[in-house]
Amino acid sequence: MCKNTHFAYFCAFYFQKMNEQEIRIEKIRKEMQVAGADAFLITSNTNIYYAAGQVVMGYLYIPIEGVPVLFVRRPLGLVQTGHALSLQYVRKPEQITEIMIERGIPLPKCIMFESDSLSHSDWLRYEAIFSRSRIINGTPAIQRARSIKTDAELELLRQSGKLHVSVYRKIPELYRPGMTDLELSIEIEREMRRAGCLGMFRIFGQNMEIFMGSVLAGDNACEPSPYDFALGGKGMHPSIPVGPVGTLLQNGMAVMVDLGGNFTGYMTDMTRTYSIGKISDKACRAHQVALEIQDEIARMMRPGVVCEDIYNRSLEIAKRNGLEGYFMGIRQQARFVGHGVGLEVNELPVLGVRSRTELQPGMVLAVEPKFVIEGTGAVGIENTFAVTASGNEKLTVLEEEIVDLKN
Amino acid sequence: MCKNTHFAYFCAFYFQKMNEQEIRIEKIRKEMQVAGADAFLITSNTNIYYAAGQVVMGYLYIPIEGVPVLFVRRPLGLVQTGHALSLQYVRKPEQITEIMIERGIPLPKCIMFESDSLSHSDWLRYEAIFSRSRIINGTPAIQRARSIKTDAELELLRQSGKLHVSVYRKIPELYRPGMTDLELSIEIEREMRRAGCLGMFRIFGQNMEIFMGSVLAGDNACEPSPYDFALGGKGMHPSIPVGPVGTLLQNGMAVMVDLGGNFTGYMTDMTRTYSIGKISDKACRAHQVALEIQDEIARMMRPGVVCEDIYNRSLEIAKRNGLEGYFMGIRQQARFVGHGVGLEVNELPVLGVRSRTELQPGMVLAVEPKFVIEGTGAVGIENTFAVTASGNEKLTVLEEEIVDLKN
Repeated sequence: MCKNTHFAYFCAFYFQKMNEQEIRIEKIRKEMQVAGADAFLITSNTNIYYAAGQVVMGYLYIPIEGVPVLFVRRPLGLVQTGHALSLQYVRKPEQITEIMIERGIPLPKCIMFESDSLSHSDWLRYEAIFSRSRIINGTPAIQRARSIKTDAELELLRQSGKLHVSVYRKIPELYRPGMTDLELSIEIEREMRRAGCLGMFRIFGQNMEIFMGSVLAGDNACEPSPYDFALGGKGMHPSIPVGPVGTLLQNGMAVMVDLGGNFTGYMTDMTRTYSIGKISDKACRAHQVALEIQDEIARMMRPGVVCEDIYNRSLEIAKRNGLEGYFMGIRQQARFVGHGVGLEVNELPVLGVRSRTELQPGMVLAVEPKFVIEGTGAVGIENTFAVTASGNEKLTVLEEEIVDLKN
Repeated sequence: MCKNTHFAYFCAFYFQKMNEQEIRIEKIRKEMQVAGADAFLITSNTNIYYAAGQVVMGYLYIPIEGVPVLFVRRPLGLVQTGHALSLQYVRKPEQITEIMIERGIPLPKCIMFESDSLSHSDWLRYEAIFSRSRIINGTPAIQRARSIKTDAELELLRQSGKLHVSVYRKIPELYRPGMTDLELSIEIEREMRRAGCLGMFRIFGQNMEIFMGSVLAGDNACEPSPYDFALGGKGMHPSIPVGPVGTLLQNGMAVMVDLGGNFTGYMTDMTRTYSIGKISDKACRAHQVALEIQDEIARMMRPGVVCEDIYNRSLEIAKRNGLEGYFMGIRQQARFVGHGVGLEVNELPVLGVRSRTELQPGMVLAVEPKFVIEGTGAVGIENTFAVTASGNEKLTVLEEEIVDLKN
């Protein structure tokens, strides 16, 4: 390859990257404008990554106009920003306004902080730094911006989906008779890692914690979870009450594999149901109803449709089939049938009660109708869909019937 | 076993568990007393688990006197508390004071919140609920209480240490020529999980994130980290800039394995250095200096010793050996040589600059003198120690010399 071609490739990559960053910052700015904020101070890892394209320990200052500044504490050296951002090393956040004053940059009248995730102590510190500014909560704004994925983000989600599917395809080979739910989970986790799963999963909310997800066998699916998941499982230890319990995989059990697929920074969410031999007719029928609900949701999902209507329609189908009492849990029922995914496992919007959000092109949703049948386990499905201009696109395409692991 | 024996076992377990909970609540109350607080509202998963023995979505209200109340939102049913706590289901936190008023329980004059981890939005909500109380930051108080482990916690840490060691012992068997750092990491992760590692690792601080830890081979150890770790590595993807980079393990490389051992809710932290064939003399010598520093720290660690003095002494030994520029990183140097561990990877105290804390019996510390030698990688050691009445106890006992994986 000659030098010029190298240079052309470099430029294409460089400008593509820059454009992507500018697009994201523009999306955030639109939300700022609606709320009347003239600046946003972003400090969480997820949102700094979203807007600056890298994780740093620092502060991204986005003014409503002009070049945003990435104030970096760590790492020392090596941080690069393109023309979309300017870079400034600092030792402490108090230097942000000192530097702005030095450079004659006007201080904001109204600034957004991520009040829903920022600790109160840090909030007070930043409040003192921007003592003359009105402070408003910017978390809902940036969550709304992030809920509409850009073309580049959608491409990363498609890539995650393909790798996610490639691992699930191998699950039947990973099963050995005499395995426990935990042992099967460990082998799938390893395959996920070998396929490029990055190992970390971001989740929003102080009380939410996640590893890769969970493999739920038999009645462990009945356990009510302290976390706001559809289903959780009891887990191996009270300190981490989620996931497998070490139960032997036995004839007649349903085994639900619900692991997140973070291969590109953007996660797809996907569930498939397996069985050990034949499972009860009731569970088989419930699985078919879950597929019916999914297909109905796929028919409904298009721009303008209200999230709550999708949940209500799902519940209606469950009721019509006499399965309402088993829908999305048994002792404790989740009141949603899907949720946004992206940089975090639980993004906006939620397909649940009281969610009046209208779907828009670029939203990415994990749709997960599930039933819990005591004595058998959890059945159902989960796929990740992107809402398009005219409908939607399934990002996790793989056989959806129950697969018998003994065959 | 006859029924009576069963009953005796049950009682022994039950009362042991209750006593442990009471001990912990008493430790928190002592800190409350010093700060002049007459109540503490605990809402984070880690601290609810610490004080209530289980993770729930809810609120633990500890009055300075009388029985603490665990207000539970999730899970529905199945939550059990012994006589140390009373249990109350709620739908929302506003019910806490409503219920207190109904029962004639006096509202606190001064209440602690976990202000260093609680989001500002939640803090505001709880402030409105306790609108007549003065609110103070309880995070440092509960962190101090947690830094002194009880006998039961020490026993769990010993168990984690033993399992942690049992997996590290197998590392040479897991290595295959032609492996990358990532592939080796994946095999060790799997062994950890198979030995009972719970898969989740709690870490304190909004900008801190961790999976199991990192396997650092060659110059990846030189990468400055955005996280506040001693060393971090660049990682496989900019969204998660920590850990292996997919580099082929080659002759002359040092491979540092630093994975957390969470087998019991309580984590030990442990690092061992491996080599692919012979590594540079400089790196070998630096490893010996790291062992010398560790042994000197082990001689120093006893009640009353000031944390900073331990760090300064470590730095002095590094300097005397002309290795100051490589100590705890190269392009970016950590200014600590150890840190508390327990329910979280980064507890109090820190063996670092400006840490005037005096060691006390029951403190558990990961001591990790490390050097980074460009062209070879990271060398050094990490072990977890418990401070005892007369000195300390090493919880992660295993060969400390560099092990050549090619042998």
